[in-house]
Amino acid sequence: MPFGTAEYQKRIRKTKERMAAQGIEVLLITNPSNMNYLSGYDGWSFYVHQMLIVIDDEDQPLWVGRMLDANGAKITTWLYHENIIPYPDIYVQSETLHPMDFIADILKQIGQDKQSIGVEMESYYFSAKCFEQLKKGLPDARFKDASDLVNWIRIVKSDQEIEFMKIAGKFADQAVMSGINLIDENVRECDVAAKILHSQVSGTEEHGGDYPAIMPLLPSGKKTSTPHLTWTDDRYKSGDSIILELAGCYRRYHAPLARTVNLGRPEKFLKELADITVEGLNECLAIIKPGVVLEEVAQTWSESIAKSGFSKESRIGYSVGVGYPPDWGEHTASIRKGDRTVLQPNMTFHLIPGMWSEGSGFAVSESFRVTEDGCETFSSLPRGLFVKEGSGLE
Amino acid sequence: MPFGTAEYQKRIRKTKERMAAQGIEVLLITNPSNMNYLSGYDGWSFYVHQMLIVIDDEDQPLWVGRMLDANGAKITTWLYHENIIPYPDIYVQSETLHPMDFIADILKQIGQDKQSIGVEMESYYFSAKCFEQLKKGLPDARFKDASDLVNWIRIVKSDQEIEFMKIAGKFADQAVMSGINLIDENVRECDVAAKILHSQVSGTEEHGGDYPAIMPLLPSGKKTSTPHLTWTDDRYKSGDSIILELAGCYRRYHAPLARTVNLGRPEKFLKELADITVEGLNECLAIIKPGVVLEEVAQTWSESIAKSGFSKESRIGYSVGVGYPPDWGEHTASIRKGDRTVLQPNMTFHLIPGMWSEGSGFAVSESFRVTEDGCETFSSLPRGLFVKEGSGLE
Repeated sequence: MPFGTAEYQKRIRKTKERMAAQGIEVLLITNPSNMNYLSGYDGWSFYVHQMLIVIDDEDQPLWVGRMLDANGAKITTWLYHENIIPYPDIYVQSETLHPMDFIADILKQIGQDKQSIGVEMESYYFSAKCFEQLKKGLPDARFKDASDLVNWIRIVKSDQEIEFMKIAGKFADQAVMSGINLIDENVRECDVAAKILHSQVSGTEEHGGDYPAIMPLLPSGKKTSTPHLTWTDDRYKSGDSIILELAGCYRRYHAPLARTVNLGRPEKFLKELADITVEGLNECLAIIKPGVVLEEVAQTWSESIAKSGFSKESRIGYSVGVGYPPDWGEHTASIRKGDRTVLQPNMTFHLIPGMWSEGSGFAVSESFRVTEDGCETFSSLPRGLFVKEGSGLE
Repeated sequence: MPFGTAEYQKRIRKTKERMAAQGIEVLLITNPSNMNYLSGYDGWSFYVHQMLIVIDDEDQPLWVGRMLDANGAKITTWLYHENIIPYPDIYVQSETLHPMDFIADILKQIGQDKQSIGVEMESYYFSAKCFEQLKKGLPDARFKDASDLVNWIRIVKSDQEIEFMKIAGKFADQAVMSGINLIDENVRECDVAAKILHSQVSGTEEHGGDYPAIMPLLPSGKKTSTPHLTWTDDRYKSGDSIILELAGCYRRYHAPLARTVNLGRPEKFLKELADITVEGLNECLAIIKPGVVLEEVAQTWSESIAKSGFSKESRIGYSVGVGYPPDWGEHTASIRKGDRTVLQPNMTFHLIPGMWSEGSGFAVSESFRVTEDGCETFSSLPRGLFVKEGSGLE
C-alpha cells in the first residue's frame, strides 16, 4: 500500500465527519479514485461494478466486487479479509442480474437497508441502472446525493501525497521532453505517443511510473483548434505546431503538464499568442497563496489576456490528484468565474489556460501546490513555445 | 474517418430498425464506443458529458458535447457542421448546472420532448444524475432502456472491421513478445509495461497503434491469483510466473491476447495447469462455427477441464471490437452457461479461459472471428507456457 494504515483511518474519520454533517449513515462509493483513497484498492476492475461501503458505526469499510477481483482487494487494501465480499461472476454484464441487487441484499443482511444512504450520483461508474436497481432493492432507504463528498476531502494533500505528486511532476517533465525531442518532420504521431508512454511508465531509476488517467493528448496542425484529440499515424510536416498535454503518474497521483512545440519558425500570430498566454499564466501563478479565492485567479487571467484583445470562455484549471480513467481531475474546485473555493496550503491544481483557437492553438500549463505564502510548481520546464529548427531544439 | 460515409449510414439504418422494433423514436447515445461506431467521433472527451442523438425521421444524428470538443467533432465525424451542437463550458463539472439540462432544452426546441426516448441506462458515462436531470427536464417523455441497442449491432463485423482487427492482432502479438523478451530476473514490472505500451502504440511500419481501452495487465508471482492488477516498480524474481493480458488496438478496434511466462523451470502444478488450460482452449476453438450456441462453447470448456478435476465459475469470453476505457468488451454476448447467442460469420470474441488460482495462475487467450465453417484467430503465437531459462526463451 502507498500509505500506512493510520493515514487511511484518518481519511475514513474525515469521511464519517462529512457523512454526519450531511445526515448520511451509509455511504456507497463507486468512484475508483475515492475507493483507492480510502482503501488503497488498485486494479483495472472498474469496468465491472464494485463498491466501497462506509458505515457510520463500523471501523472498516466493506469492499464489494467481482469474485475474480477479491484477491486483488486482499493484496492492495488495508481491510480485514472478512470485509472483502465477492459477488458471483454471473452478475457480470448480465441482462437479467445486476451487481446492485447483490449489494442491496448485503445491506439488508447487515441491517443497513432502512438508513440514509449516500450515493455518488455523478460518478462515472454509478450508472443510471445502478441507481434504479438500488432503489428497487432498498425500498425503505432514503437516498442522498453524495457525489463529491470524498472528493472534497481529497482536495488538501498530506505531505506524503505532495511527495508523490513531485515524483509525478518529474515524470511529466521527462515525458514532455521525450516527446519534443522526437517530434520532427516525417515522424509519425503514434511514434511520439509511444515514446511518451514509455517515459511516463518507466519513470526514473528510483521510482516506476503508473498509467495516467488520460492518454497523451497530441493535437497537431489544424487539430490544435481542439484539445482532446489523441494521435493518428500521420507524419508531422514542417510548420506544424503540436500541443502536448499529459501527466506523470506515481501511485495514482497525477501531475499534468502541457507544452507546445513548433516545427520551424512559428508564424507571427502563434508567437504572440504564446507570449500572451505565458504572461497570463505567470500573472496567475504570482497571485496564488492561501486565502485567495479561485475566481480571483480566473479574473487575473481574463484581465491579462484582455489587454491583448483576447478572451476565453472555458475554465482554466481544476484540482488534481488521485485519478483513474477517464479523468485525473478531482471534480471539485475549478478555476473559473463563480468558484468561491478559498486556497489553502497543500491544495493542488492543474492550471491550464489553453488557447485552442481555429488555425493556431497554443497551450501551456503548470501543476502546483499552494504553499504557506505562494505556490510551488511540480515542473521545471520553460513555459514558452518550443521551436525546433533543422533537427535541433531552440 | 476510418470508414466511408456509406458504412456509417448503413449503421444508422440498422440502428433505426432496432429503434422501430423497440418502439423508440429518439435514441440518446452516451457510450463512446457507440458514438464512435455511428459517427466516427474520436477524442478523449468522454470524461465530460457528450451525446449522439439519433432521431427516427432525421437523416443524420446530432452530436452534443463540450464547446472545446466541437472542433474535434468537426474533424473526426461525417456529420454536417450544423448537426454539431456545443454546450457552454459553464456546464462542465458544475454543482449547479448539468449538461443534461442543456440537452433537454435542445430536445424541446426541436420538438422531440414528448417522444419515446431510449437511454443507455447501463453505459459507463450515463450517470444516475444524468437520468435524473433528463427526467426533470423532459417530464412528457417516455424513457426506455436501450443500453445495448447499438452494441448488438456491433457484434457482427464488416470485412473492413475484420481487417482492422487483424492489424490489431499483429500489434498484440508483437506487444506480448516485447514483454516476454524483456521479462527477466531483476527487471522492473514498470519497465516491461513501458516496453509493451511502446510496442502497442508505435504499431508496425505500415500502421500506427491506438491506445488500448485497458492498460496492460501484468500480475506476477502471488498476484497471479487475480487478473486485473496492472504493475508496480517491483523487480521480478527467479521462479516468478507472469501473466500478460493486453490488446492491440487499431483505430479503436481491439484484439486482446493473454500469455503466461515463467522465469526458470516451472513447478509441476503450473505446468499441468498450463497443459489443461491450453487443451481446453483448443477444444473450444475446434467446435466454433456458425450455428453453434455460445453456452455450448462454455460447456466444452467445463467438460474438458473437469477431466482433470478442475472447474471455473467465471465466464470464459465475450464479444470484442470497438472500445474506449474502461473496457474493450462489447457488453453483449458472453461465453458462459445460459448465453444462447448463436454464432454467425464475422462475429468476434475474446476467448480467455484464465485460471487465476491461489499460488499459481495461468492464462492464455485467443481473439478470433467466426468464419463460414470454423474460426480464425488474430494471433499466431504458441499457446503454451513460455519458459525463460537463463536469459533465453525456450
